[in-house]
Amino acid sequence: MSIRRTQPGRPRLIPTTTAGPPREQVLHAAAQLFVTQGFAATSTREIAEKVGIRQASLYYHFTGKDEILAELLERSVRPTVDRVELIEQAAAERPETALYALVLVDLRTLAEAPDNIGVLATHPDVTSSEAFDAFRSIRDELARAYGRIATQAGDPGAAHAAEPRHLGEMLIHLVEVTTSLRSIGVTIDEETADAIASTCLRACGIPESRITSAASSAAALVAGLPASSHG
Amino acid sequence: MSIRRTQPGRPRLIPTTTAGPPREQVLHAAAQLFVTQGFAATSTREIAEKVGIRQASLYYHFTGKDEILAELLERSVRPTVDRVELIEQAAAERPETALYALVLVDLRTLAEAPDNIGVLATHPDVTSSEAFDAFRSIRDELARAYGRIATQAGDPGAAHAAEPRHLGEMLIHLVEVTTSLRSIGVTIDEETADAIASTCLRACGIPESRITSAASSAAALVAGLPASSHG
Repeated sequence: MSIRRTQPGRPRLIPTTTAGPPREQVLHAAAQLFVTQGFAATSTREIAEKVGIRQASLYYHFTGKDEILAELLERSVRPTVDRVELIEQAAAERPETALYALVLVDLRTLAEAPDNIGVLATHPDVTSSEAFDAFRSIRDELARAYGRIATQAGDPGAAHAAEPRHLGEMLIHLVEVTTSLRSIGVTIDEETADAIASTCLRACGIPESRITSAASSAAALVAGLPASSHG
Repeated sequence: MSIRRTQPGRPRLIPTTTAGPPREQVLHAAAQLFVTQGFAATSTREIAEKVGIRQASLYYHFTGKDEILAELLERSVRPTVDRVELIEQAAAERPETALYALVLVDLRTLAEAPDNIGVLATHPDVTSSEAFDAFRSIRDELARAYGRIATQAGDPGAAHAAEPRHLGEMLIHLVEVTTSLRSIGVTIDEETADAIASTCLRACGIPESRITSAASSAAALVAGLPASSHG
């Protein structure tokens, strides 16, 4: 990722956030404020203050807080969507392995997204503003990928089976339970990740024997994927 | 439910919301504003204007917007929690029927909650403020009920089985997919409700044959429950 340099300007006086390029510091500080006090209640002035830069310097990197939130939200889905094709190729003919791997990758993306930003994804500020059209479109692509892979993997004779688009929405939503779990203090370790991924496969009607083998082949598949550019 | 009467005061001039007792009109107008423009961005003045009453009249019913949101959120969980004991008694020894019935009741509660208010349940304004402690405590009681019933119903030999508290959180979260589905325009009809309930049972590792019989006995059980006081 290319990082634009700040102009010389004023030195940063109160560096309260973790070190890193200024643009990243702005994203990190904004994420903390959005998550703790809400998006509408946060001003670009406060974000700049938290980073220890002037408001004008913040506007060198972003046109406003909509653009900051848009980038944070995209980071909560894009690394997963970018890997869907690789996963489907690597696990062709083994849709349950592809589904398990997709969940593991998605959980890693959500874990790496700053400050549980996923909680804002369904917020009215986000769902009602055009500023987040790009995010919604990527999230929709992810929901369709879930639906497609889950329908291939699932039990075609299941009673009351959900249609692919709804099943996709259910699975993407179920994986997002990670943000609820984080907010009640649960650490998303490998054991929790396996519990969530297995639950997703079960939800599609995949029997236990195939879940166990999908778990081990998915772990190997994910280990072989290229690292995230944001990782 | 007892409704306090408004004082005579000024007549309502711009009745833009559905008819009903003033307190209900305030709740309904507030829900619409909170969901469309966000909680932090909504003032009690705007809520009063939308109902067509003076701000002072609104304060006759509520101490402020925190109390309004608290009541809206409680309505999205309390009718379900109030029925947990009845469901567990009616389906003693049949935990998968109890789980299916719990999901159906929860879906009905969420469908009756005004304006998809559930989307605000995980919002920072709600998770970080003491004003919503009562709501969080009722939601936690519901998550524990889900965990308890699901653990009784589920496959004890499942690989990577989630612990009861986490499984409960996953299921309550999965049922809340209804708010995502509503926000993308899906009508939560009986077919969708059955798809969500079946997916929850599958997620616990319950086999198809038992899901089919749980679906029919749960429908009968739910039909026999007393109606919601808010219905």
